[in-house]
Amino acid sequence: MFRRPRTLRYELRPIGWVESPLTVARLAPRQGDEGAPDAWLRFDPAVSEGIRDLQVDTDIIVLTWLDRARRDVLTVHPRGDVRSPLTGVFSTRSPDRPNPIGLHTVHVLDISGARVHVRNLEALDRTPILDVKPLLGPIAQR
Amino acid sequence: MFRRPRTLRYELRPIGWVESPLTVARLAPRQGDEGAPDAWLRFDPAVSEGIRDLQVDTDIIVLTWLDRARRDVLTVHPRGDVRSPLTGVFSTRSPDRPNPIGLHTVHVLDISGARVHVRNLEALDRTPILDVKPLLGPIAQR
Repeated sequence: MFRRPRTLRYELRPIGWVESPLTVARLAPRQGDEGAPDAWLRFDPAVSEGIRDLQVDTDIIVLTWLDRARRDVLTVHPRGDVRSPLTGVFSTRSPDRPNPIGLHTVHVLDISGARVHVRNLEALDRTPILDVKPLLGPIAQR
Repeated sequence: MFRRPRTLRYELRPIGWVESPLTVARLAPRQGDEGAPDAWLRFDPAVSEGIRDLQVDTDIIVLTWLDRARRDVLTVHPRGDVRSPLTGVFSTRSPDRPNPIGLHTVHVLDISGARVHVRNLEALDRTPILDVKPLLGPIAQR
């Protein structure tokens, strides 16, 4: 039997926001390594303890909420090319998907209080930040 | 000025659930490659179009909601070892964090309708699934 969890909805509370020159989805690069600009991650002062060990010149994973995406889309033409066959969104990196969570690996350029400067982030200005994780090295952390 | 987005809360709607022999958090491995069992991803039939292009013998990224984690934690002892100095959660893979999103890279062993069998998943039984993404190859997809 399909034993569903008790709860069917969960509430995300952003921990910060992206500050970027990218403001128009149509003009945003599809991936960070396709010409995305540097951007600032601006954290809510309430989570400053959580970011205190971030370090300049390391790579981090940033999870965002792509708040301008569509949530009712299950198939897309990859990279928006109508000549490509319709593909299930879970086999693509389309921002349009039931839970539009953005996954970005970025390099930390600078840290200034609760602001973290990162390289090549394709998220739009004011995109909410959900989480930050280290890239795992040989020794996994928890 | 800190230009916050208009919305400060977002709603996650799980697209499926994990079926795993792992039921007790205390006994779960800290990472998938530390002895985690194989598990099934069981998708809601409502998103079957979205998973239709998943393929056996590929690697995928699975995002989950770690529903048994604590959200009020900002510093932890890495790997639960009290001899390790307290560390900001965003520099660790602790499940306890403001938005407890699990990030798992797994290998697809089998697909049977809306059930996908994967190798070495450290998520607990009944953990909600939020999203699935391809690992990016040389050509980024969208």
